[in-house]
Parts: sequence; structure tokens; C-alpha cells
Amino acid sequence: MKISEIAEFTNGKLVGAGDIEIFRVAALETARANEISFLEKTEFAEQAAQTKAACLFVPENFDASVPCPFIRVVNPKLAFAVIAEQLHSHTRKNSRNETAIVPQSSDVRASFIGAFVSIGENTYIGEAANILDGVKIGNNVSIGKCSIIHPNCVIYDDVSIGDDCVIHAGTIIGADGFGFVRDGERGYVKFPQIGTVVIEDEVEIGANSCIDRGALGETRIGAGTKIDNLVQIAHNVRIGKRVVIAAQTGISGSTVIEDDCIIGGQVGMGDHATVKSGAVIGSQAGVLPGKIVRAGVWWGTPVQPLDEYKRQNAHLKSIGRLKEEVKELKKQASDSVEKNRS
Amino acid sequence: MKISEIAEFTNGKLVGAGDIEIFRVAALETARANEISFLEKTEFAEQAAQTKAACLFVPENFDASVPCPFIRVVNPKLAFAVIAEQLHSHTRKNSRNETAIVPQSSDVRASFIGAFVSIGENTYIGEAANILDGVKIGNNVSIGKCSIIHPNCVIYDDVSIGDDCVIHAGTIIGADGFGFVRDGERGYVKFPQIGTVVIEDEVEIGANSCIDRGALGETRIGAGTKIDNLVQIAHNVRIGKRVVIAAQTGISGSTVIEDDCIIGGQVGMGDHATVKSGAVIGSQAGVLPGKIVRAGVWWGTPVQPLDEYKRQNAHLKSIGRLKEEVKELKKQASDSVEKNRS
Amino acid sequence: MKISEIAEFTNGKLVGAGDIEIFRVAALETARANEISFLEKTEFAEQAAQTKAACLFVPENFDASVPCPFIRVVNPKLAFAVIAEQLHSHTRKNSRNETAIVPQSSDVRASFIGAFVSIGENTYIGEAANILDGVKIGNNVSIGKCSIIHPNCVIYDDVSIGDDCVIHAGTIIGADGFGFVRDGERGYVKFPQIGTVVIEDEVEIGANSCIDRGALGETRIGAGTKIDNLVQIAHNVRIGKRVVIAAQTGISGSTVIEDDCIIGGQVGMGDHATVKSGAVIGSQAGVLPGKIVRAGVWWGTPVQPLDEYKRQNAHLKSIGRLKEEVKELKKQASDSVEKNRS
Repeated sequence: MKISEIAEFTNGKLVGAGDIEIFRVAALETARANEISFLEKTEFAEQAAQTKAACLFVPENFDASVPCPFIRVVNPKLAFAVIAEQLHSHTRKNSRNETAIVPQSSDVRASFIGAFVSIGENTYIGEAANILDGVKIGNNVSIGKCSIIHPNCVIYDDVSIGDDCVIHAGTIIGADGFGFVRDGERGYVKFPQIGTVVIEDEVEIGANSCIDRGALGETRIGAGTKIDNLVQIAHNVRIGKRVVIAAQTGISGSTVIEDDCIIGGQVGMGDHATVKSGAVIGSQAGVLPGKIVRAGVWWGTPVQPLDEYKRQNAHLKSIGRLKEEVKELKKQASDSVEKNRS
Repeated sequence: MKISEIAEFTNGKLVGAGDIEIFRVAALETARANEISFLEKTEFAEQAAQTKAACLFVPENFDASVPCPFIRVVNPKLAFAVIAEQLHSHTRKNSRNETAIVPQSSDVRASFIGAFVSIGENTYIGEAANILDGVKIGNNVSIGKCSIIHPNCVIYDDVSIGDDCVIHAGTIIGADGFGFVRDGERGYVKFPQIGTVVIEDEVEIGANSCIDRGALGETRIGAGTKIDNLVQIAHNVRIGKRVVIAAQTGISGSTVIEDDCIIGGQVGMGDHATVKSGAVIGSQAGVLPGKIVRAGVWWGTPVQPLDEYKRQNAHLKSIGRLKEEVKELKKQASDSVEKNRS
Repeated sequence: MKISEIAEFTNGKLVGAGDIEIFRVAALETARANEISFLEKTEFAEQAAQTKAACLFVPENFDASVPCPFIRVVNPKLAFAVIAEQLHSHTRKNSRNETAIVPQSSDVRASFIGAFVSIGENTYIGEAANILDGVKIGNNVSIGKCSIIHPNCVIYDDVSIGDDCVIHAGTIIGADGFGFVRDGERGYVKFPQIGTVVIEDEVEIGANSCIDRGALGETRIGAGTKIDNLVQIAHNVRIGKRVVIAAQTGISGSTVIEDDCIIGGQVGMGDHATVKSGAVIGSQAGVLPGKIVRAGVWWGTPVQPLDEYKRQNAHLKSIGRLKEEVKELKKQASDSVEKNRS
């Protein structure tokens, strides 16, 4: 893409020559010829003055001197990400490895099927999907167009994945939920885990995560939601649209996370909790079963509004001094009793 | 199974016609013709009155009107789970995929061997076992009859798994434990991790969990124990029978968990701890190395009896008020000194 | 190895006959003929007196009677580990499974390539490396000599792994980092994750861990570092040499951990934090984004020096009593006011 085309694509105002071809995005310090970078805030202008990039995205109010053409945009980081998507395609060239197992009963239109892939019966995979090496897909699965399933993922029977999803390596979708009924001294009998998983469009899930199937109903991940590595989503969880969940967080059964929430890393949520739209939950927080978390910023175990959490932490730090003060008061009181006696 | 047969199988008392055939279990709201559901408590009777299920399990004291035959049982949820096991079989039809690698030195009787499975030398796999696609099994492994190993699991050399076990996808059994000896400035030398893992009968392990082999001895998981996804069991841990461990919990080396314990999610246990039979540990709790946790309910880091934890949390909330009170007392004391002076 | 050779190899002083052949290492209680064990501290001498081992490593000041030859060394556990490395080799016999896919453009010198391995284009794998069953390796990857990649690991494109590394089963190296830019109501656009991962020599990584690639730069793991199971290392993290990280810990983006740190299990670190050389962080601790953690021992969330954490915990326990004391003081103050009035 030429610089002028990039400016047009990102609705930016180009200052300087627009005819140089851009091949890659790169960081401000490492960008070289034919690479574009970005300046997140005008304060970093000094750094920008040193850049060897071919072009920069800059904030709209940017007015310093840089040694290359630049493009003024509302959100330079966003423009950079948008252009990176154009320049760095993740799809592979059309091919179907001869070792892949694709039964006749399945309708597999994917443009790339890697080595040692196995696909079950009555499964549908849409156009331009990429199923990478070692992926195992069960029966009656549906995977939408342009989705990428990275190596060694396992998709159990009956799971549905939308269009434009990315599932990173080693992630398991549709394993049995964790539900057992105690039968006295005999131990546990498995509660049926015969539901399914529905993943809507444009969902990205990191590596080695687990999305369990519903016990009787479904587990659902809403469109545009982004989930990091090593995350656990239990049976019958319902996650809304555009939710972000960082690494190693675990969501227990039947919990609901509404649209546009942000959940930090290593958060634990009990079952049947509800996180209302717009809530932000800090890392390592713990949400009790059945708890309703409203919009706002939350932290701690059990989870509480961030302000309260901070105040409590400050209080905690002050106990030592408080003890000293009480000791002193007791001494005064006892002295005063002594004095009154004498 | 006919309704009358189901009533007999679950020791229930049938009210209504018993000749309809049941094919599946389902949730109360979604159950349709030929499906059976359950009513956990009599309070949900109103919901039950609307059901389209062919039959319901209900509590023994149930006495409301429902639009279908019902079966009175001691524990409706348990009866439902027991019948689900009968109706929804997890085993696959007999077959051995031609890509599977099974050496002559191994005795593999499994009824199902999937695609891209590799099995090592001198390994035994019992009758009716199911080894699904992409599973890698080492040398000198033993897997009992009717066990199911889901796709892409890895079983290292020398591991022993009992009968009727279920291991979900991506789980790794028998990787090296994490033990190193510091050698001054040169760094770490690996302590030998040459023990093994023994998993007894009827154990279920979730997806992407890790059970490390013993350093010199064994790591053992007792019969009937159920382990969730993304759980870490370190070298030489000994877990008793009928223990339940929720997702993302980690148990450090040589820790012992006795029979019938329940461990929540994201719990961390230090090494050489002991959890006595019947203990229940809440989610995100932390057990210090060497700690002995007795029967009862525990929570927090470091772990303490639930009552104490709750009391402490209440105290924590009250520090703010306590500070106000102390401030007031100091003011009074100072006023009183002033008054005495004047 | 003969006992006399072992004594020489470990710089020890042999007491007793040196001509017996040793085949294996074993624990003190289970060691038998032709096995060597060790006595970590002289206090365990009684146990040692019962051993059936063929030989023991003992501390230099050891002076009790044992029923076998023994070798006095500075650090018996270290000597034991060093000899175990000699006696228990992890490498497999030379072979390349016929199912493995190795393109002509790649230079694969590994001595062992297992079944259902796929290797990408322009990839280099050094001499004596072992690539076990089901491993998927991308394009432009480099893996050094003598490294062992256990079954079903996934190495994404462009990753570099040094010599003498061990990567346990199911670990994913080089998946995309977790970075997105919000685009108003439309949701999230992916920030480019086009960097790489560099793993230096003698690194060991446990099972089912994830090391994400850098967004624009690199994620780096220093030489001699040891990482446990289910650990999450985010994009652009830089970990120094000889660092130890226990299971289920998560390190957020761009955080730096300097040489010789020890990080417990289930620790969470925010982004852009720095852990200075020599710091030790206890299990389940939480490090805030941007925090600088100096040398010393740390614990808790937010992380604090261990002494402060302990003091704070003790204070926490004393709030109940403090409340009683304040109550009593208030009563005294009110009584005294009453008295003054009367």
C-alpha cells in the first residue's frame, strides 16, 4: 500500500509525499524503510524525531518535525492496528494436506487444511477457513468462513463457531462441564454434560484455554469477545459481545457476563454470578457465587468497588498506628485513674 | 428405556402411564416428547406444571399436578444423572483408524483407536477403552478397561490409569515434576524426575490439566476422584478417593489430600501440606507449605476456618469506624486534659 | 558407572568399596542393589542405617554407620542430581518416523523425530535434538542441538529455541499476544502481534504453558531459566537468566524479570512491572502494573516485603481485640463523664 492509500484508508490527513510503498508495520525505534509506525501521544515527539520509519501515524494536534511523511488521525494506535491487519495477513495459501481426514458426510470448504487434521461426520467448515496442523474436530461441528483454528486445538462434537474467529493452539472447545451428583458413600455420578458451545463471530480465544459445553443447554461466547490464554469457561456460562477476558481467569458454571465488560487476569468467578454491562474487574479478583457486579471498576476478594478496596487497603496499613494510639489512650486512662485515686 | 423400566432402575414410584419410550434427558424448560427431566425441589412445581417433558423425576413428597407421568425418588437430580448415563453413552463404535501406530510389543484391546494416535512399546490398553484422535501414549503405560482418553492427550512413559476413567482433551499425564538443585553461579541442575503416576479407577480429569510424575516415587490419584480443567498436580502428590478439585487449582509437591475432600477453583497449596479427610476449601484459598488442614470448611490466604475468615472480613470493614472512634477518644482525652489544666 | 567413578565425577570422598556398578538413582527408603541414594542432612542418619542402597551421598561431616559404601560431598542432593543426569538419559535412540513431515527447505538434523510431527519451511533443528510425537513446528523456526520437544507442543513461526532446552508436552510457544485497540461501538481491532519469541539455552518449560510472541519486538526467556506447568508469559516479557517460575503464574505484557529471581506459583504480575535481580516472590502474590520489586522476599496482593505482609496479617488478627479495647475505653470515658456530672 502506498502512503497516500493508507492515509485515505484510515481517514487521515497526510503531510508529506504519498508515493512510497509500505510493506510492514513496526515499532517506532525499529521501523526502517518501507515500514510505518505510530506516535501514541504528542509527548513522544522527541523519539519520533529520531525515527527511520517511512511514515508515521500521529495525533491530530501533532505539530513537531519528523524526518518522514506523517498522517494525522484521531487515534494513531487504532489506525496502526487497522493498517497492520491489511499488511499482515494471517491466512495461508490454499492447500489441503494429504494426511488430513475429511469424511464425505462433511461439507469442508476451508481454503487451508493442515497435516494430521481429523474432521468428524456431518461437520461444516466455511469458505476461506484455515484449519492448521493437528486440529481434531468432532461430528456435527460448524465453523464459519475465514475462521482460523491453530494447531492441536480440539473441537468436540456439536460445537458451533462463527465467522472470522481465531482460536489459538491447544485450546479445547466443548469438553464436558464439571458436574457431579454425590451418591452417598459410593461417590459421584456424573451429571449429564450433553449441551453444546456456541461461539459467535469475530471471537478470538488464546492458547490452551478451555470452553466447556453446556450441561443441558449451551455455553455461549458473544460476537467480538476476546479471550486470552489458559482461561477456563465452565458449562452454561453466557458471555456477551465485546467482552475482554485476560489470561488464567476462570468463570464458573451458569455465570453471565454482559456486553462490553473487561475482566483482568487470574480473576475467579463463582457460579450463577452476573456481571452487568460495562463492569471492569481487576486482576486476581474473586466474585462470589450468585453475586451481581454492577457497572464500574471492581477489585479484591470478595470483589468490591475499587475505591472501597483502596480505602480498605489504606485502613489495613494503618492498623499498626491505631494499635499504638489505643495503647496510649489506655495508658492515659489508667494514669488518670491512678491520679484520681492518689 | 420405557418409563416403567426407568422407575424400576432408579427405585422410584411411578405415577401415571409407564409405556412411553424415553430417548434422552433434558432440562425442565426444554424437554419435549420422549425426554425425561427432573424437579430438584418441590418449590419449582409451578415450572413443572408447564413442562412438555414425557416424564419427570420428582422428590418423594411431591404432590402437585404435572402434565406427564412422574417418578418419585429420594434424590431426583441423582436419579436423573443415573438415567442419563444409561441413555447417553460416551463410547464410540468399534474401530481402529488405519493411521494409528500400535507396536507389536503392546497389548492394545481398546474398542476404539482414533486417527493419528501413537502408542509406545510394552503398553497395555484394556477392553472397551476409547483412545481418541491425536492421543500420544508412551512406553510401559497401562490403561484399564472402558477408559476414555480424549483427543490430543499425552500420557508419558510408565503411567498407569485404571478402569472407567475419563481424561479430557489436551491433558498431560506424567510430565517431569518441577525440581531443581541450585549449583551456585552455574544455575540449576535438574533433580531426577524418574517416578511415575498412578490413577485409580473411575477418575475423571478435565481438559488441559497436568499431572506430573513423581520425582523418585509416585504421584497418585485415588479412585472416584474428579478433577476439573487446567488443574496442576505436582510430583509425589497423593490424592485420596472421591476428592473433587475445581478448575485452575494447583497442588504443590508431596502434598496429601485425603478421601472425600472438596477443593474449590484457583486454590493454591504449598508443598508437603496435608488436607484431612472431609475438608472443604473455598475457591482462591492458599494453603501454606506443610500446613495441616483439618475437616471443616476453610477459606482465604493463608487458609483459615470459614467462620474466622468471615469474622476477619467483617473486622476489616469496620477499621474505618474504629479509626473514627479512636480519633474521638483522643479528642475527648485531650479536651479533658485541657479542662483539668484550666 | 562404578562407585569409584561416581565419587570422582562428583568430587567426593569415597568410604568403602568402589567397584560395584550403579545403574539408577533412587529414594533412600526404596533404593536397592545397584542403586545410589543420598542423605540430605546428617540428622537423617537413622534412616540411612536401614538403607538397602548400594551407595549413598552424604554430607561432608557425616560420621555415622551405614550398611554400604558412601561418598562425602559438599551438597549431597546436588551430587545425586548430577549423577542422575548421567545415569538416566532422556534422549531416545536415533530414528525418524515415516509419518513425519519435513520439507526440503528445512535443515533438520535432529536424532529423533516422532510420529505425526510436522515441520514448516526454512526451519532449522540442531544435532541430537528430539522432536517427539505430534509436535507442530512452524516456518523459520530455529531449535538448538540436544533440545527435547515433548509430544503435542506447538511452536509457531519465527520462534527461536536454544541448545539443551526441554519443552514439556502441550506447551504453546509463539501464539499471538493479547492486544486489542477499542474502536468505539464497533468493538476491538487487533493490535499487530508480529514479533517473535527467543528462548535461550538450557531453558526448561513445563507442560501446557504458553509463551506469547512479542507484539512488535520479542519475548525472551534467558538461559538456564526453569518454568513450570500452565504458566502464562505474555508478549514482550523479558525474563533473565536462571529464573525459576512455579506453576500457574502469569506475567503480563512487557514485564521484566531480571536474573536469578524465584517466582512462586499462581503469582500474577501486571504489565510493565520490573522484578530486580534476586527478588523472591511468594505464591499467589500480585504485582501491580509498573511496580518495581527490589531484591528480597515479597508476598501478598498488592505485593509487599514479607516482613510487612506478616506484620499486617498479625495486625489483621488483632482487630477483634482492638475493637474490644476501644469499646472499653469508650465505656470508661462515658463513665467518667457521668461521674463528673454527678
